[in-house]
Amino acid sequence: MIEKLVTSNLKMGVIAGGQLGKMLIQEASKWDISTYVLDPDEGCSARNVASVYVKGDFNDFDTVYEFGKRVDILTFELENVNIEALQKLKSEGLKIVPDPDILALIQDKGLQKEFYAKHALPTSSFICCENEEEITEALQTGKLAYPFVQKLRKGGYDGRGVSLIHSSEKTLLDGTSVIEQKVDIDKEIAVIAARNSAGEVRCFPAVEMTFNDETNLVEEIFCPANITQEEAQTAEALAIDIIEKLDMVGLLAIEFFIDKQGQILINEVAPRPHNSGHHTIDSVVTSQLEQLLRAILDLPLGSTKLTSASVMLNLLGEAGYEGPVYYEGFSECLAIDGVKIHLYGKKSTRPSRKMGHVTVLSDSVEHAFKKADQVKNILKVKSWEK
Amino acid sequence: MIEKLVTSNLKMGVIAGGQLGKMLIQEASKWDISTYVLDPDEGCSARNVASVYVKGDFNDFDTVYEFGKRVDILTFELENVNIEALQKLKSEGLKIVPDPDILALIQDKGLQKEFYAKHALPTSSFICCENEEEITEALQTGKLAYPFVQKLRKGGYDGRGVSLIHSSEKTLLDGTSVIEQKVDIDKEIAVIAARNSAGEVRCFPAVEMTFNDETNLVEEIFCPANITQEEAQTAEALAIDIIEKLDMVGLLAIEFFIDKQGQILINEVAPRPHNSGHHTIDSVVTSQLEQLLRAILDLPLGSTKLTSASVMLNLLGEAGYEGPVYYEGFSECLAIDGVKIHLYGKKSTRPSRKMGHVTVLSDSVEHAFKKADQVKNILKVKSWEK
Repeated sequence: MIEKLVTSNLKMGVIAGGQLGKMLIQEASKWDISTYVLDPDEGCSARNVASVYVKGDFNDFDTVYEFGKRVDILTFELENVNIEALQKLKSEGLKIVPDPDILALIQDKGLQKEFYAKHALPTSSFICCENEEEITEALQTGKLAYPFVQKLRKGGYDGRGVSLIHSSEKTLLDGTSVIEQKVDIDKEIAVIAARNSAGEVRCFPAVEMTFNDETNLVEEIFCPANITQEEAQTAEALAIDIIEKLDMVGLLAIEFFIDKQGQILINEVAPRPHNSGHHTIDSVVTSQLEQLLRAILDLPLGSTKLTSASVMLNLLGEAGYEGPVYYEGFSECLAIDGVKIHLYGKKSTRPSRKMGHVTVLSDSVEHAFKKADQVKNILKVKSWEK
Repeated sequence: MIEKLVTSNLKMGVIAGGQLGKMLIQEASKWDISTYVLDPDEGCSARNVASVYVKGDFNDFDTVYEFGKRVDILTFELENVNIEALQKLKSEGLKIVPDPDILALIQDKGLQKEFYAKHALPTSSFICCENEEEITEALQTGKLAYPFVQKLRKGGYDGRGVSLIHSSEKTLLDGTSVIEQKVDIDKEIAVIAARNSAGEVRCFPAVEMTFNDETNLVEEIFCPANITQEEAQTAEALAIDIIEKLDMVGLLAIEFFIDKQGQILINEVAPRPHNSGHHTIDSVVTSQLEQLLRAILDLPLGSTKLTSASVMLNLLGEAGYEGPVYYEGFSECLAIDGVKIHLYGKKSTRPSRKMGHVTVLSDSVEHAFKKADQVKNILKVKSWEK
């Protein structure tokens, strides 16, 4: 594989052309890797940067299989991929990073939780339920009590497929799900670990998230996290433990809860570049995307040393606007020192759609937060249409 | 212009698709700018990252004119462009950054020197000569003495078109040229200044160059430069003075000599991203490419604060190899913390061809040099063909 890379002939396939795919491809162009992207949406973020765009459904067996046949190496930027096609490609010798079996495990939040339980990794207590009847039965037999969190086992993302259930008045989600005891959360942090085929593991410094009270979506992610050194070490040790127990090559983003008793609990993981690592592009020696490329290509992993404190905020479509995007305040924001704006190139906005992100660099997180507050007040993702 | 940018509809034309064009386009994709690149070489560096590649000769009037008609805004990454076409496009209302008149002045090393003389900007003494006879005459009348430096007024780059003449035994270059008194050089440094249409100016911290004794090409560029604070201030003040006196919008790289008497003399300037700014991609809050985009788009300029000390080295084709490129030692180099490799994507190597660069980040320049020495020993641009 490395032979093809160093002769500038490597074809890397990326399944899906969202922002994570776009950012991975941008990084790959630094090493002159030819990139193929598969996405059903002709206006997808990655299309404008990929060497070759292939229109197609990443849930369709034939489409994914044929796409895989065109490349030397394959990766994915979202979990919701046709795994059977990946497994067939793997059986025929295609290198896929991460391994499709890892994806199969992580894609299913029930299997994920069972994996933590099996390996005595700390996570909130849970039960798996096929349907509403099983949940009702668990409540009646005392195996479950309000409040709890219901998560669909498959397909949820960006807060979708997750519901906090306080009482019988709240409608349950329809589908096979994991029911988790609600954690009394003090903080939410995340660590991204990378592992290559030689077994080398490196972690990015822990980040901490703040959430929007209304949408319950992540509002800001800051680094370094406001946690003790002991907590940082515990989280990092857990991240290493998980990626090693999974025997996984690639990037694994691990989201943790720290509860009010100071316990660190694994919330969930994603086997790909992650929103919680956007800041690494601008504030770490090696970005999460370069780190993933290194892992994919059997290269040594890079330094995860911070070069700056940062606050990252997602640029979400403003409520009330839907249509061709307009970034109000773009110019004014760039007058603030240390503001790095990343636009994903989605042509249309809609409420809460991730349209870009801003990383604010500064000497301290406190100062970066002040500048991030200015950015939030100035920069709005709007449209002329309503 | 900004309206088109913030609606993701801006088409930026880049004349020539070398590494500087490639890096500019990579940066532009962060803001979802559509990029058009004009280059005669279908295998040029920028082709794989541009939205649209146009094959054509940038010295041909019609080609440049028609290319300009397809875009909203136009810039160039090399000086050797058909200026008449740019001037016609400008007269018809196309925004070109930098202005073609600035290019006309800088493209001609004679006009450049006369500009410094006119504005009493410090530079080595010089005369302009049309041909060999004029040089001989100047020597005979005592207006000139050996040793001197002969520079062709137009078309030179990467050490070509420049010759150090020690005696009458050395053959003179053929063509109209600038003859400069040889400076007794202690150090060579460079400062990149940026200026936007509002007149805001920012300078990147001064860098210092080391040269290869054999090829006389730049070997390494390190930042911060090993100069006094006073020298740094003088160089920066001169950089600001030049870009303001030129009334120029865009990026201006200014190379300086510091002579053995401690005088700071302007060597020459380039109105574009520059080799001496490669390190900014990895070690400054705003890269030279983002800074140029800001200037082109009438945006506020970004912070030029260093996030790391660095040593940059050009990856040149090894002597003795010509043909499809192979990067020997690529993987081993990446095992050294802080090594950032940029490959330009040129498919063929030849001796001394610029094939990529490496920026080594570290806490100190001294430490970065140690790692850069390792890189130089390990990473070689070769080919299976000889």
